[in-house]
Amino acid sequence: MNHDVFIKEAIEEAKIGLQEGGIPIGSVIVHNNKIIGRGHNKRVQKGSVVLHGEMDALENAGRQKASVYKECVLYTTLSPCSMCSGTILLYGIPKVIIGENKTFLGEEDLLKSRGVEVHILNNKECIDMMNTFINNKPELWNEDIGE
Amino acid sequence: MNHDVFIKEAIEEAKIGLQEGGIPIGSVIVHNNKIIGRGHNKRVQKGSVVLHGEMDALENAGRQKASVYKECVLYTTLSPCSMCSGTILLYGIPKVIIGENKTFLGEEDLLKSRGVEVHILNNKECIDMMNTFINNKPELWNEDIGE
Repeated sequence: MNHDVFIKEAIEEAKIGLQEGGIPIGSVIVHNNKIIGRGHNKRVQKGSVVLHGEMDALENAGRQKASVYKECVLYTTLSPCSMCSGTILLYGIPKVIIGENKTFLGEEDLLKSRGVEVHILNNKECIDMMNTFINNKPELWNEDIGE
Repeated sequence: MNHDVFIKEAIEEAKIGLQEGGIPIGSVIVHNNKIIGRGHNKRVQKGSVVLHGEMDALENAGRQKASVYKECVLYTTLSPCSMCSGTILLYGIPKVIIGENKTFLGEEDLLKSRGVEVHILNNKECIDMMNTFINNKPELWNEDIGE
């Protein structure tokens, strides 16, 4: 499994979100080394309170069999919040690769306590992108994490 | 706070979902004794893997201030799964009224451990509706809970 290839695709999604005036968080869902869903945060673009990057990627993957989810790897540019972590648990996604958790620490401990394999890449591009965004639009960022 | 009035509205949403050929789970979000969002499971209707009843109600409520969420009560006909529970935690919704938890037990313990007030009504109409649905469409139900 080449994490670099897939985290780059998640970063591409985050950049699309930024170009659209949105929050730069992206995600891809990978099954058998192939992307089956990709997405980015849609709070601004769709006025959505549920389409975080991970949720958008899952939604775009469409309805999958339970057996498929249980063989997937989810890549996300940022540590998943409680909503996205709860969704990972609902569908039994066994492995999550996280671009960074320096600018926001989500529910990694909850995921690990339920047996999910969690890897943190601490990718510089992910960290820089979020730091810049949070500095530029703190109110939008706070809204996205319920603060 | 009149729980009967609002759980009835959540049940109405569940019934609309059933009439549409969907999964009969409904929810309303109440702020200052007024419904600000209502919805029902949209797995079948929209091919959605994220729009459980609670998520649909939150999505329909639209982008709210953090201070509003923190004064809301969420009503749902069924015990909230890990996705919906994680979303309740993300937005800091302090109180959840649950129609029933006999046919499915969600993440009530997680919610309570994080300080969310949880009430179970064990409403007969909610229980009967879900039992009938699960008996009629077990595969659809299993898909909705990731099994």
